[in-house]
Amino acid sequence: MKYGFGIDLGGTTVKLAYFNEEGLLLDKWEIPTRSQDGGRQILPDIAQAVADYLEKHRIPREQILGLGIGVPGPVSRDGVVNKCVNLGWGVLPIEKQLRELTGFPVKAGNDANVAALGEAWKGGGMGYESLVMATLGTGVGGGIILDGKILYGARGAAGEIGHMVLNRKETLVCGCGKKGCVEQYCSASGIARTAREQLASHEKPSSLRTVADVTAKDVFDASAAGDEVAKEILETVYDRLAEFTANLANCFDPEAIVLGGGVSKAGPVLLEGIARHFKKYVFHAMADVKFVLATLGNDAGAYGAFKLVLDQAG
Amino acid sequence: MKYGFGIDLGGTTVKLAYFNEEGLLLDKWEIPTRSQDGGRQILPDIAQAVADYLEKHRIPREQILGLGIGVPGPVSRDGVVNKCVNLGWGVLPIEKQLRELTGFPVKAGNDANVAALGEAWKGGGMGYESLVMATLGTGVGGGIILDGKILYGARGAAGEIGHMVLNRKETLVCGCGKKGCVEQYCSASGIARTAREQLASHEKPSSLRTVADVTAKDVFDASAAGDEVAKEILETVYDRLAEFTANLANCFDPEAIVLGGGVSKAGPVLLEGIARHFKKYVFHAMADVKFVLATLGNDAGAYGAFKLVLDQAG
Repeated sequence: MKYGFGIDLGGTTVKLAYFNEEGLLLDKWEIPTRSQDGGRQILPDIAQAVADYLEKHRIPREQILGLGIGVPGPVSRDGVVNKCVNLGWGVLPIEKQLRELTGFPVKAGNDANVAALGEAWKGGGMGYESLVMATLGTGVGGGIILDGKILYGARGAAGEIGHMVLNRKETLVCGCGKKGCVEQYCSASGIARTAREQLASHEKPSSLRTVADVTAKDVFDASAAGDEVAKEILETVYDRLAEFTANLANCFDPEAIVLGGGVSKAGPVLLEGIARHFKKYVFHAMADVKFVLATLGNDAGAYGAFKLVLDQAG
Repeated sequence: MKYGFGIDLGGTTVKLAYFNEEGLLLDKWEIPTRSQDGGRQILPDIAQAVADYLEKHRIPREQILGLGIGVPGPVSRDGVVNKCVNLGWGVLPIEKQLRELTGFPVKAGNDANVAALGEAWKGGGMGYESLVMATLGTGVGGGIILDGKILYGARGAAGEIGHMVLNRKETLVCGCGKKGCVEQYCSASGIARTAREQLASHEKPSSLRTVADVTAKDVFDASAAGDEVAKEILETVYDRLAEFTANLANCFDPEAIVLGGGVSKAGPVLLEGIARHFKKYVFHAMADVKFVLATLGNDAGAYGAFKLVLDQAG
């Protein structure tokens, strides 16, 4: 049996996982991300963590297929990062550098894309060769899987679906500097904002009015408890999500759309809610696209990263 | 030298073209599309046209690589058509049937996708491995080329970008049955409608007020002649086109976006107009995507269809 590492590099921690070649996650742990000083300690830290792990568990180097890594920024198909603001990185040939530091084959991808690959391989998207994953978290990220492979895009930036324009009339500015992005409506913070706006627009009674700082979770909880205003808020959210995902279906004609991130913890009600609005927006040929929930949570990135290693080795 | 046929199957005529393996278009002609009786004469007619051509020009069968064909409906990657309403077809294994009728290898694709492949191979998109083509004609069609190949999609319907939703508040119904599709604003008829609406909304003088039934071409001509109202109308159109193409860039991260169809005959002013609005809508990483005009006109489909044959043979 061969083994390898799947690594999810985030702004504050690096998540490392150890897999066997069948894709069984055998172990996982974290180290801090030292992003100071232009982030130049990050890759040496990862190399050291891997070396320490192999030594501690007396794992022979010959058993290791390689390292896969997901990075919070654009990564080209030939393994070059192009700016990771929150790591302090500019243009960085990450595969080459990490290969030199570890002596192992290395394959890299954008973190959202790699998470999509993980869900396609072992998560909610298992069994689908083509899918779009939308990660509805603090922001909205995305990854496109075609024929079981990540769509990298010409600049390593394919799948920036959270920054498609959904409302050209928006006046508030998105984190990306534009206005009216999907992220401003379909992320957890976008749902909270929608709640605040709708609560302020009328005086209907709602349990949400007693909550100090309404979150997306509060809205889902109140709706589940029967709160009519919370239900109305969520219908607006589902409608936006339906328009967004229909546009994705119209572009890619995927087998499935996978919803992940914190918002997807709402569960099946989210899928049912989107389904109530989806047909208004989708082209008839794609009306039967499957919607599924992500299942790997925070491990999706590690799974996808290790899958990159397997695909490379295979 | 080997040769082959590129065929563009339309609702009223079948365009046939004869190529050498270097992609030189050597001859082209048309036959009528007999769509009556469930369209069952269409493939036999094509097979007969090919056989007649070979006989007339005494071309030995061994020199023929095969036939490629673009079809006005969804075509799966394994060569099955799924409903072509205007040909009278339901589910049809077109590659298999045409192979049996002709004795040659056959490869099929959706007509808009095949035209995109043609432009990528020998037209405006030459030199780009990944591109999105938007055909701005009576309607808006599209094709996605990734790594030099057509993205077919799970249902053979990828690239239905003309039916992405651009305006959820639209009240008029699109040809597809939905409301607010790209096609309702960015097609030739969409531009004409925008012109009618804007002309009716104010009383500013314009040469367009003397035109009986304003077309997209009238608007471009009047704008080029200095008509201020026509310029305003086109700025609205460019703005919509910029939002549309930016969303495509955000999804696919292509090297280039190719604009074809009748509207693209407006020429460089179209590219400049979109460029004035594009940065408002595109994610920063894709801001440098190249915009180019299609160059093959009505032959794009034949070129792309023959390229399918070459890729299959190669």
